[in-house]
Amino acid sequence: MKQYRLVSRENKGKNTIIQVNGVNIGEEKIIIAGPCAVESEQQMDTVASFLKDNKVNILRGGAYKPRTSPYAFQGLKEEGLIILNKIGKKYNMPIVSEAVSLASLELVANYCDMIQIGARNMTNYELLKALGNYKKPILLKRGMAATIEEFLTAAEYIITSGNENVVLCERGIRTFETYTRNTLDLTCVAIIKELSHLPIIADPSHGTGRWELVKPMAKASLACGADGIMIEVHPDPYKALSDGEQSLNFTSFKTLMEEINPLLK
Amino acid sequence: MKQYRLVSRENKGKNTIIQVNGVNIGEEKIIIAGPCAVESEQQMDTVASFLKDNKVNILRGGAYKPRTSPYAFQGLKEEGLIILNKIGKKYNMPIVSEAVSLASLELVANYCDMIQIGARNMTNYELLKALGNYKKPILLKRGMAATIEEFLTAAEYIITSGNENVVLCERGIRTFETYTRNTLDLTCVAIIKELSHLPIIADPSHGTGRWELVKPMAKASLACGADGIMIEVHPDPYKALSDGEQSLNFTSFKTLMEEINPLLK
Amino acid sequence: MKQYRLVSRENKGKNTIIQVNGVNIGEEKIIIAGPCAVESEQQMDTVASFLKDNKVNILRGGAYKPRTSPYAFQGLKEEGLIILNKIGKKYNMPIVSEAVSLASLELVANYCDMIQIGARNMTNYELLKALGNYKKPILLKRGMAATIEEFLTAAEYIITSGNENVVLCERGIRTFETYTRNTLDLTCVAIIKELSHLPIIADPSHGTGRWELVKPMAKASLACGADGIMIEVHPDPYKALSDGEQSLNFTSFKTLMEEINPLLK
Amino acid sequence: MKQYRLVSRENKGKNTIIQVNGVNIGEEKIIIAGPCAVESEQQMDTVASFLKDNKVNILRGGAYKPRTSPYAFQGLKEEGLIILNKIGKKYNMPIVSEAVSLASLELVANYCDMIQIGARNMTNYELLKALGNYKKPILLKRGMAATIEEFLTAAEYIITSGNENVVLCERGIRTFETYTRNTLDLTCVAIIKELSHLPIIADPSHGTGRWELVKPMAKASLACGADGIMIEVHPDPYKALSDGEQSLNFTSFKTLMEEINPLLK
Repeated sequence: MKQYRLVSRENKGKNTIIQVNGVNIGEEKIIIAGPCAVESEQQMDTVASFLKDNKVNILRGGAYKPRTSPYAFQGLKEEGLIILNKIGKKYNMPIVSEAVSLASLELVANYCDMIQIGARNMTNYELLKALGNYKKPILLKRGMAATIEEFLTAAEYIITSGNENVVLCERGIRTFETYTRNTLDLTCVAIIKELSHLPIIADPSHGTGRWELVKPMAKASLACGADGIMIEVHPDPYKALSDGEQSLNFTSFKTLMEEINPLLK
Repeated sequence: MKQYRLVSRENKGKNTIIQVNGVNIGEEKIIIAGPCAVESEQQMDTVASFLKDNKVNILRGGAYKPRTSPYAFQGLKEEGLIILNKIGKKYNMPIVSEAVSLASLELVANYCDMIQIGARNMTNYELLKALGNYKKPILLKRGMAATIEEFLTAAEYIITSGNENVVLCERGIRTFETYTRNTLDLTCVAIIKELSHLPIIADPSHGTGRWELVKPMAKASLACGADGIMIEVHPDPYKALSDGEQSLNFTSFKTLMEEINPLLK
Repeated sequence: MKQYRLVSRENKGKNTIIQVNGVNIGEEKIIIAGPCAVESEQQMDTVASFLKDNKVNILRGGAYKPRTSPYAFQGLKEEGLIILNKIGKKYNMPIVSEAVSLASLELVANYCDMIQIGARNMTNYELLKALGNYKKPILLKRGMAATIEEFLTAAEYIITSGNENVVLCERGIRTFETYTRNTLDLTCVAIIKELSHLPIIADPSHGTGRWELVKPMAKASLACGADGIMIEVHPDPYKALSDGEQSLNFTSFKTLMEEINPLLK
Repeated sequence: MKQYRLVSRENKGKNTIIQVNGVNIGEEKIIIAGPCAVESEQQMDTVASFLKDNKVNILRGGAYKPRTSPYAFQGLKEEGLIILNKIGKKYNMPIVSEAVSLASLELVANYCDMIQIGARNMTNYELLKALGNYKKPILLKRGMAATIEEFLTAAEYIITSGNENVVLCERGIRTFETYTRNTLDLTCVAIIKELSHLPIIADPSHGTGRWELVKPMAKASLACGADGIMIEVHPDPYKALSDGEQSLNFTSFKTLMEEINPLLK
C-alpha cells in the first residue's frame, strides 16, 4: 500500500501556499525567529521589538519544552502562551509555539497563529491525528531518525485528519558526526520540493546546535530552495534557560539578515 | 545538571525486580511473546494456547498500532484490549499492550498487567509523565535514534512521575545498514546492566525485522545479559495484518525455545 | 596528544590558496567538472570542448575506479590518463584524476595537474604518506564514515609527509537516509572554514547520487562558503559506464552554470 | 550486474573451513588474542606465554598501525613482525598481523601465518586485489561504514584475485551512539552465516572500545553463531601504546575464557 498520497506532487502539482495571518509561506521567503523558550514578558518584549524592526515575519517562543531530562527547565506553559500572545499583538506579529500533548494543543491553538509539532513528536501519531480538529496552520518538524518518506507520511497523517495547512521543517538528523548537535540534511529540502507541494523551511539553529554555524547554513538553506528559515534569537544567549549555545544575539542576527538579503528574493 | 539519577547504579546498587502478576523480571529470564497486533479472538486464542504450552511468561498483542502510514491497519483499539484481557485470563498469562496517548493509556492500564511505551513515543515526554498516575509496570522501548543516555533519561521521567516499575527494552536503532529493518544494539544491554539497576530485555523481532534472524539474535541477547526477550509469534505470518515478515510461526518458535533453553538459566 | 596541528587556523590564520596550473583554489570560486570515468578519447573531447565553453576551471575524469564490485568497470587505467592528458592540453584545462595505489599515484602524478584521493582511500594512510613525494596539489575527499576531525587529520598526514597543497572535498556521509546515495553534510564546509586554513569544495554529484538534486545542492554548497564545486557531466548519462544516474547532461549543466553564476562572486 | 557470486551460499552450500597452521576456522570455535600493537619482545613473550596457557588458538599483534593521527605511535614495522614471528615459534602459536600497503603485505606474508586487512583498508581495493599473490589466509575486517553487501563484495575481490582463504570479522560500525567507540553489529554475523559459506568471527574489543564490555559481547558473538572471537589483551593496559582502554588484562581474560567455555562447543 502506498505510504502517502495527498502530500505528493502527483496529487497536486502546484505549490501549496499556507497563510499565517497575512504571511504567505510558499510564496514569499519567510523568517521565523525568537527565543527557544519564553522566559518572561520583558524578554519577549525586547526580542519582539528587535525582530519586528528586522523584518522577521513570524515570532516563535516555546512554552512547552520537551527536554531530554526531567530536571531541565520545562517551559512556562500557559503563562508562556499568554505572554507570547500579548507580545505578538503588541508588535502585530503572527506567533508560533509548540504543542506536546492534546491538552497543550488546545491551549496553543487558542493563543497562537501557528502550531508547531516538534521533532520528538513527529511519530506521536495520536497528536498528529488530533490536529484535524483545529484550523490553524501546522509547522511539522522532521524527526531525528525520520526518513524523508516517513516525514512526508507524518504530514499525510495531519492532512487525512482534516487539516491541510502543513509547513514542513528540516532540522537535522542523527548521524555519527559529533561536532554538530545534528546533521542538517539540506538535500531533504530539495527532495521535498520535488516530491511534495507543501512548503518546507529549514532550522539551522537546531540543525547545527552552534550559533557560529547558523549564518552559513541559513544561506545554504535558502539557496537550495527552502521557503524560509527558523532562527533562535535571544537578547543574552549566555543567560538563556535552554539552547543558549545555538542562539544568535542581536548583533549576529542583524548581520545574518543583511547577508541573506540577496537570497530572499 | 545531571541528566539522570534515580535509574543509576549510584543511586541503587542492587538490581530492581519488577513483578508482573507473578512473573519476576530481573530475577528469572523471561519470555514475552505474541502477535504484533491483536486481530481477532480466535487468533489470540490459538496463539495463547500455543505459547502457554511453550513456557512463555507474558502474552503480548498490540491494540493501538503507531503505524508509519495513516493508510495501514491501526489496530482494534479497545476491542483488541478486551480480547487480550479475556485470553490472558483464560490461559492465566499476564498481558502487555502498548499505549499511544493519554486516552489509550487509561484503557491499557485498565485491561492489561503491563503497559508498553513504544519506540515512537520514547520522547513523548507528556505520555511518560502520565505514567506516574498508574501503578502497573511499564515496558519502555528505546527510541530509534535515542542514545543510551537518552534512553535512561526517558526512564527517569517515568520514575520521577511516581512509577518506579520500569523494564527497558532494546529494539534496534537506525543506522546506514539496510539489510535489516534496524540495527539491534546489544551492547546497549551490557551497558545498561552496568549503569542502571533496572531490568532490560531485548526485542530481536523489531531489532532485525526478519524472522530468520530472530533465533540467533535471541540467543545473543540472553548471552550478553538481557533479562529476557520479546518475540513476535503469529499462527500464520503470511496473513498477519502487520509485521508478518518478522514474526515466527509456531514451528520456528518451538525450535527457538529449545535452543535458547541453556541460556535461560 | 593533539590530533592535528598544521591544518588548523591556530597554526595559520590566513586562507591557503592552492595553485593548479593558473587556477587559484581558495581565491576564486572554482568549478571542476567532467565524467566519472574516462571512457574514450571521443567522449573526453566532446565533454572538454563543452566544459571549456562553459567556464569550467578544471577537467576531471577517472582512470582508476575503486568500484564496490570486482565485476564492475574498473577504468581504462594508464590509457585513460593518456587520453585525459591529451584532451587537457588540447583545451588548455588543468586535469585531475584519482590515484588508488602507489603505482597509480606515480602515473597520475606524471600525467595530471592535481591528484585526487577518493573517499574509499581517505584512511589508506600509507597512500597519504606517499603524497609527500610529489609536488602536485592534492584533492582529498572525505571518507564515508569520517568525522570532521578525522578528515582534517587525514589532511595532516599529507602535510606532514611534505606536501602542503591540499584541497578538501565534502562528498557526503553514510546515514540512515536511503533516498539519496549519501547525505551531503554541508555544515562540514562551514566548520572546515572555521577550523582550518585549507580550501574546501563540495561534490553534490556523489553527495546526492541523483542528477536532479545536483543543481540545488551546488547552490547550497557555494552559499555556505565552499571554494568551489565538483560536478559529474557526461554527454549521454544513460550510457555512462559508471555513475550515470548522478551525471548531468549538457543541457542541465548549462542551466546549472547560469543559475549558480550569482554565487560565484 | 550482481555484486558478489563466489562468496555466496548459492555458489557453495557447505561451510568453508580455513586452515591456519593447524587451526581450522569454521570447524572449531577459535580465539585470536594478543595486544593491539607489538611493543617489545618482552611484552610479546609475557603475553604469548599467558595466552598459550589459556587455550588461545592464534596470537595477534600489530606491527603496522593505521592510526587516525600522524602523531600517534605507528608501530614497530618489520622489527615488530620479527618479534611476533619469533614468539609465535617459541610458543608454537600461529600468528596474524595487519598489512596496510603492498610493501607491508610482502613482509606480513613472509613472517606471519595469516594476513589481516583492517577496517580502514576494506575499501582499499588495490590492496585486496594484491592478496591473490599470496597463499596465506586472510582476516578481512568490516569497514566502519560498510554495508553487509559491501563487506561480502570486498571478500569477493580477494577471491577473484586468486586467494580463497578468507575469514571475515565484524568489528563494529559507525552510528550516532557515542557511549561506545563503535556499534558492534552482531546481526551481521547471523546474516553472513546465511548469505555466505565463509567463516566469520567478531571483535568485541574494537566493537565496543571499552574493556568492561568485552566479556558480555564476546558471549553474545559466540551465541549468535560467530566462528570465533578476537580479543585485545595486554599485560598492563594502562601502559599500552595504543587502544589500552579496550584491552583486557590477564585476570579479566582468564575470567572471560572461563565464562565463554560453554559457548565454545
